[in-house]
Amino acid sequence: MPYSYLKPLLDDNGSKIVLLVMDGLGGIATTQMGKSALELANTPNLDRLAAEGSIGQTIPIRYGITPGSGPAHLSLFGYEPLEYVIGRGALEAAGVNLPVRKGDIAARGNLCSLDQQGNVTDRRAGRISQEEAAPAIEKLKKVQIPGVEVEVRQVKEYRFVIVMRGEGLDPSLNDTDPQEVGVPPLKVTAGIPAAKKAADKMEEWIQEAYKALADEPVANGFLLRGFATDPGLPTYEDAYQLQAACIAEYPMYKGVSRLVGMDVLDLVGPGAEGEFKTAGKYWNDHDFFFIHIKKTDSYGEDGNLEGKSKIIEEVDQALPVLLDLKPDVLMVTGDHSTPAVLKSHSWHPVPFLLWAPETHRTDLETAFNERNCARGGLGTFPAVETMSLALAHARRLQKFGA
Amino acid sequence: MPYSYLKPLLDDNGSKIVLLVMDGLGGIATTQMGKSALELANTPNLDRLAAEGSIGQTIPIRYGITPGSGPAHLSLFGYEPLEYVIGRGALEAAGVNLPVRKGDIAARGNLCSLDQQGNVTDRRAGRISQEEAAPAIEKLKKVQIPGVEVEVRQVKEYRFVIVMRGEGLDPSLNDTDPQEVGVPPLKVTAGIPAAKKAADKMEEWIQEAYKALADEPVANGFLLRGFATDPGLPTYEDAYQLQAACIAEYPMYKGVSRLVGMDVLDLVGPGAEGEFKTAGKYWNDHDFFFIHIKKTDSYGEDGNLEGKSKIIEEVDQALPVLLDLKPDVLMVTGDHSTPAVLKSHSWHPVPFLLWAPETHRTDLETAFNERNCARGGLGTFPAVETMSLALAHARRLQKFGA
Repeated sequence: MPYSYLKPLLDDNGSKIVLLVMDGLGGIATTQMGKSALELANTPNLDRLAAEGSIGQTIPIRYGITPGSGPAHLSLFGYEPLEYVIGRGALEAAGVNLPVRKGDIAARGNLCSLDQQGNVTDRRAGRISQEEAAPAIEKLKKVQIPGVEVEVRQVKEYRFVIVMRGEGLDPSLNDTDPQEVGVPPLKVTAGIPAAKKAADKMEEWIQEAYKALADEPVANGFLLRGFATDPGLPTYEDAYQLQAACIAEYPMYKGVSRLVGMDVLDLVGPGAEGEFKTAGKYWNDHDFFFIHIKKTDSYGEDGNLEGKSKIIEEVDQALPVLLDLKPDVLMVTGDHSTPAVLKSHSWHPVPFLLWAPETHRTDLETAFNERNCARGGLGTFPAVETMSLALAHARRLQKFGA
Repeated sequence: MPYSYLKPLLDDNGSKIVLLVMDGLGGIATTQMGKSALELANTPNLDRLAAEGSIGQTIPIRYGITPGSGPAHLSLFGYEPLEYVIGRGALEAAGVNLPVRKGDIAARGNLCSLDQQGNVTDRRAGRISQEEAAPAIEKLKKVQIPGVEVEVRQVKEYRFVIVMRGEGLDPSLNDTDPQEVGVPPLKVTAGIPAAKKAADKMEEWIQEAYKALADEPVANGFLLRGFATDPGLPTYEDAYQLQAACIAEYPMYKGVSRLVGMDVLDLVGPGAEGEFKTAGKYWNDHDFFFIHIKKTDSYGEDGNLEGKSKIIEEVDQALPVLLDLKPDVLMVTGDHSTPAVLKSHSWHPVPFLLWAPETHRTDLETAFNERNCARGGLGTFPAVETMSLALAHARRLQKFGA
């Protein structure tokens, strides 16, 4: 459960909270003259909100820790990321809305290419497209073995997810991905003795599935990773008395949102503007909106500083659509930093903006970027405090003690 | 126990520490042009101390949590407020120096008005004065029942405190205040089975007491709240080797101070100047002085920005009286924020000033207010660290490890 001291203080006053996450927002300026993507971007709306409200910077997990997307979002959602661990398989399954219940086993799959000796020649089967991968996935969907039920769903391109359901299945299984080519896929092994049955059943299914793919020209094999079961997260309604909605384009962010009980909304259009209009369409049905912008992270990972900067500008330009809805609390931040110069996620603190016109404390900072956020009135704080700040500024928390 | 790692490091070197708390000090500027009460106030002395020393801002309990006065003060005193919970009854009893020992039950009482059917018509008996309430309180003092001992004391106006002493009394009792008019007071009920005897005894006393008040013209009933026993807090002497004194005008702050073993001093005069002169009178008898200014909070709760600002100026003007005593460490802060614009306690961080001319580290800030404190050298830190900083700057803590 997110901070247990919050629950007795909750007061559902109907106020509206928006958490706008630009994935991988934080960047770094590596020389005195350098600029981060956020500093490069022309962001009059965000700067105005920063001037009016409070800014600061978050530590996503712990000092020095570079987060994956799952724990980074859990932290923003108020779930202590070292305590709540979502296996990648469960996250991926939730992303495509494939139910994983306690005791089911989910895993991520990549189609791969094998040579005649059964050694991996390409761990992603040449990154074949959605359409090229579909026939192989269709074959996998038909593979069943006695005693368990197996469901397979394509995620995107060569990626799929598998869920196995049955009695006495423990998810402590080791990956079959050898992480290199020229060797065969690994056998599924049990990480703990209790997982022996699950390992046997999974290996049995894999052998049947290999037979089914034998005639495929490229995708004649596959690798499984991230075996996991339902993480059993408390929901937003239970933890915060919030009817929460997720507005995201990518499956994995929908997945983590579903795991905390958010409704995943159908987008009314593309990009930031489409997402903000989606919030408008469903504004009366929910009181918390998690809006996720993916491309800031993608460009960061590609080392494309200008591309990342342009996406930030696109968000800024669309922002009036969101502001016209008059949220009581608007928070703008990232789940982690993805500095273009590093081409990867990083551990650096993440810029954070809190704007709640009736309750925020104006600070001395007047621009939204890494360097000003480091001096902001909210200070440097753990990302897992985000929901406490949101609820407080929405006046949804009563006084603690007399 | 406050941080257990402090105790082996303690070194009573005779230095003097002053903790000056302006209740509800923090405010908010809600627009770029707005000002908080602290920003409005002309405070040359505080600004000089801020320029010479270090400033920062505290989180009273946790991010987003609005504290009541009890937990907020415990935190400043170094007692983790989620761990040490003082029931209101025990706090109120300590405030009027009515002893509550482990196993006793204390509760707050309000005189109230009942109609002929026994329904509450006014939960505070028309807020009658000290003198008007006195006859009813005198009658309550005389009510005794077999098997227990009961003591009643007037707190202020229509408010009183009751302590019941006897064998096997558990304080887990529910309030009798129905929190509305037009209905009768609630019966005392046991929150857990072990409290049944206490509930029966308390209800027996209440019925006798109602009979005693039957002829009162206005205050012909009463409501009880906050049943509690002694919280068993470690004392300042035990935790910090400090002979501590409390200088406060209001009972509840005297109460929380007594519960941590402070001596409550008799004031030599009114207002900040009277309190500072009181410190001077008893300067040689103690080495820690907690000085409490109430009216900053009262004006904040009333939404009176100018009033709050004037009180801060009054404190500033009287400050030389305190500085003439040459404290080794002077800390100026609040227990929480009470922004006039919100007319209530809030969760916002609290300005903090630390001045210790022989040991402080001067930072870049030169004014004492919310916005500068957010940039100060002490950063944003939990209020529960206040005593560690105090002891350190007073050179009362030896090195940890070799």
